[in-house]
Amino acid sequence: MLRYHLGWEDAEGRPAQSTGKRLRPVLCLLACEAAGGQAERALPFASAVELVHNFSLVHDDVQDGDRLRHGRDTVWVLWGEPQAINAGDALLALAHLSLTEVTETSVVAASRLLDERTLEMVEGQVMDIAFEGGGDVSLDAYLAMISRKTGALFDAALSLGGLAAGASPENVASLGRCGRQLGLAFQVRDDMLGIWGDVDRTGKPVAADIRRRKKSLPIVFALERAEGDELERLQRVYRAGELSAGDVSFVVGLLDSLGAQAYCQDEADGHRTAALSELAAADLDERAADEMREVADFLLERDF
Amino acid sequence: MLRYHLGWEDAEGRPAQSTGKRLRPVLCLLACEAAGGQAERALPFASAVELVHNFSLVHDDVQDGDRLRHGRDTVWVLWGEPQAINAGDALLALAHLSLTEVTETSVVAASRLLDERTLEMVEGQVMDIAFEGGGDVSLDAYLAMISRKTGALFDAALSLGGLAAGASPENVASLGRCGRQLGLAFQVRDDMLGIWGDVDRTGKPVAADIRRRKKSLPIVFALERAEGDELERLQRVYRAGELSAGDVSFVVGLLDSLGAQAYCQDEADGHRTAALSELAAADLDERAADEMREVADFLLERDF
Repeated sequence: MLRYHLGWEDAEGRPAQSTGKRLRPVLCLLACEAAGGQAERALPFASAVELVHNFSLVHDDVQDGDRLRHGRDTVWVLWGEPQAINAGDALLALAHLSLTEVTETSVVAASRLLDERTLEMVEGQVMDIAFEGGGDVSLDAYLAMISRKTGALFDAALSLGGLAAGASPENVASLGRCGRQLGLAFQVRDDMLGIWGDVDRTGKPVAADIRRRKKSLPIVFALERAEGDELERLQRVYRAGELSAGDVSFVVGLLDSLGAQAYCQDEADGHRTAALSELAAADLDERAADEMREVADFLLERDF
Repeated sequence: MLRYHLGWEDAEGRPAQSTGKRLRPVLCLLACEAAGGQAERALPFASAVELVHNFSLVHDDVQDGDRLRHGRDTVWVLWGEPQAINAGDALLALAHLSLTEVTETSVVAASRLLDERTLEMVEGQVMDIAFEGGGDVSLDAYLAMISRKTGALFDAALSLGGLAAGASPENVASLGRCGRQLGLAFQVRDDMLGIWGDVDRTGKPVAADIRRRKKSLPIVFALERAEGDELERLQRVYRAGELSAGDVSFVVGLLDSLGAQAYCQDEADGHRTAALSELAAADLDERAADEMREVADFLLERDF
């Protein structure tokens, strides 16, 4: 199950082409180099972060009932929900095991940091599910949720890179804040792709997140800004049992007229700017910091 | 959710009487004393083991669809399956966080040990679910499964107590093997109570595990020993969609005639004897070792 989920094997156990962007471990290795360390030192930490990320994906697919990921059946579709819960649990335990590959005092600090961020991530997941359950969600509450659900693990990725390099507490904290802002920018971009993404590039249907009535940032924005009849219809769409084709085009049109795309782009740009200024404030190796800026650009310009 | 599950609060957040036997943390503290340490030193480890145990209970209830635990609604009944998955995830992350409260080099060894045993426990859970899915299960395979599912965490409880006391690697290993055998004895006793337990003491219906068609040790034994028509009917009962009242009394009678209860009692006694001889082989404080023997007696004589 684990090898399948990580994309190393197909469902029959034959070797397969690995999937996933591996963004978090790449950022962890770059943060280590930026803080003056050899990237190799951060490998166990980078693996741990990627394993925590994948544990959350496997459980997330169960929780949301998602049947596909990267165009492949999700783990619970192939092995059932109970075994998928086990697969996620095993990935989380493996993440901790990976940490202890670094036989230095920094393991305790790294373990504490990863656990705290993992808890934050789970807390974000709790909020996300509660939001979907109903009731109004403010933009502030939504941003606080994604700061935990996505930001926390990007924070861990960069902080752990710093720890592996033996960086000062101030530099580790700066790297962490940079990671948090990158994570926020990444999630906002993800929310945009969920509605305005190119079908051929994302592999998802047009307006995918509207069809599954996910309360992502553009929708939370619209629910806060729409008025009168439009607000009423929007609320009805996000409460109703069934979604008509007319509902989808109504929501797409309303997002357009409210300027939701521009709002989201501003929000993403703001987080990128904040991330870059955290990077500039820290005392880092310039070449590695440049590479991190390139990753930040990729995060915001990617269309898949 | 966590406070409710641990029995500290009721579903409305009001203080409640805590439930659960807290066997594993008690054994961890006693193992620490037996190895010559102050029990207080092992508190973070004992908490970690109890949290890992509770993470597994919350996910187990989701996986098995169990609606009651200690006579109270399970977490997924009150908050839904997705949130219950999150609650379990948080307990596992908290377990690791608890480990780092011990600011000594032993944290790395403790973390590795707990992670390895947690993985073993999840592996046992994978086997358990696969067994329920169908096909023949041998007694050997069943015992290998409960050695992982239950034995591994009892092993961790006693090993971590030894680590907290700064015991020698040999003593830590002896304590771990003692814990594994105690866990096996505990699980066998649990399997017996699931069929022959007193309704008033266990809070479960008569022959509870037959009604839910759980392939516990007495049933695996019967499936291996029964012959002819009896075997055929037993196999049919454990495959069929519905269970009649006649089926339950047939199985109870068959277990009787095959001597399943005596077989299980022998098995439990054998694991207790093995546990006590591991204890005798280790170089331990006698008073604490005596207390551990009392816990072992309780494990095997309890009727709830």
